[in-house]
Amino acid sequence: MNSSPTPCEFCNSPGGPVLWQNDLCRVVRVDEPDYPGFCRVILQRHATEMADLGEGERDGLMAVVFAVEAVVRETMQPHKMNLASLGNMTPHVHWHVVPRFEDDRHFPNPIWAAPRREGGVPPERAKRAEALAAALHERLGS
Amino acid sequence: MNSSPTPCEFCNSPGGPVLWQNDLCRVVRVDEPDYPGFCRVILQRHATEMADLGEGERDGLMAVVFAVEAVVRETMQPHKMNLASLGNMTPHVHWHVVPRFEDDRHFPNPIWAAPRREGGVPPERAKRAEALAAALHERLGS
Repeated sequence: MNSSPTPCEFCNSPGGPVLWQNDLCRVVRVDEPDYPGFCRVILQRHATEMADLGEGERDGLMAVVFAVEAVVRETMQPHKMNLASLGNMTPHVHWHVVPRFEDDRHFPNPIWAAPRREGGVPPERAKRAEALAAALHERLGS
Repeated sequence: MNSSPTPCEFCNSPGGPVLWQNDLCRVVRVDEPDYPGFCRVILQRHATEMADLGEGERDGLMAVVFAVEAVVRETMQPHKMNLASLGNMTPHVHWHVVPRFEDDRHFPNPIWAAPRREGGVPPERAKRAEALAAALHERLGS
């Protein structure tokens, strides 16, 4: 019997199509049509806060987060990169890695703010995101 | 003559009362009455993205970010910690370190989303935040 009031989403499901993973963490594609290239880096084991990780685990996770940041930036060529570890709704350590464009739905506000304009993405931008899995494997190994 | 269209806010001002600093970065208190304990860690030099930093600089900055996370958590005893590096409006590397409470203005949404309830903070919570500067110096040295 699970003693927690609700099962943890990221313990019980991948959280999206897995683009890359190792024993420590997985990189998943976020299904958000306004934000092609948006990835999440999810710790494989359950932990609530970055501060709960050991130093080696923390550094290993951040090395992947920053590798994903670099790959998403190179692949998507955004105006700005956004990184965030929030977890208020799903308190299981994960990082949002979001390429931002001046014409995206919320720019320059955070993607969680009220939209500034209608959604819709240039097809060329959505196309670029298709190259992410291969680029991640090239950078991080298989 | 400055060639940039607008001067960089974090190159031209501290960005808030400085609680701690070294040659690499400074920790400032964010003047946000709904969020006592909210700190920003700001890189001293100008750089736009984490991916623009050298590995040593990046690791040094993250060591401070995670130390601030730990100190804010111990001092404020929040329900959850939020970390974010966005910089869409001020593209100068900085990290938001935000203690979140179930009764805060936006919980469980990000602080940048529409508020869920009226503002207002228990006096005891605001009081705790006064201990942050001393706690940061104890953890990070002077």
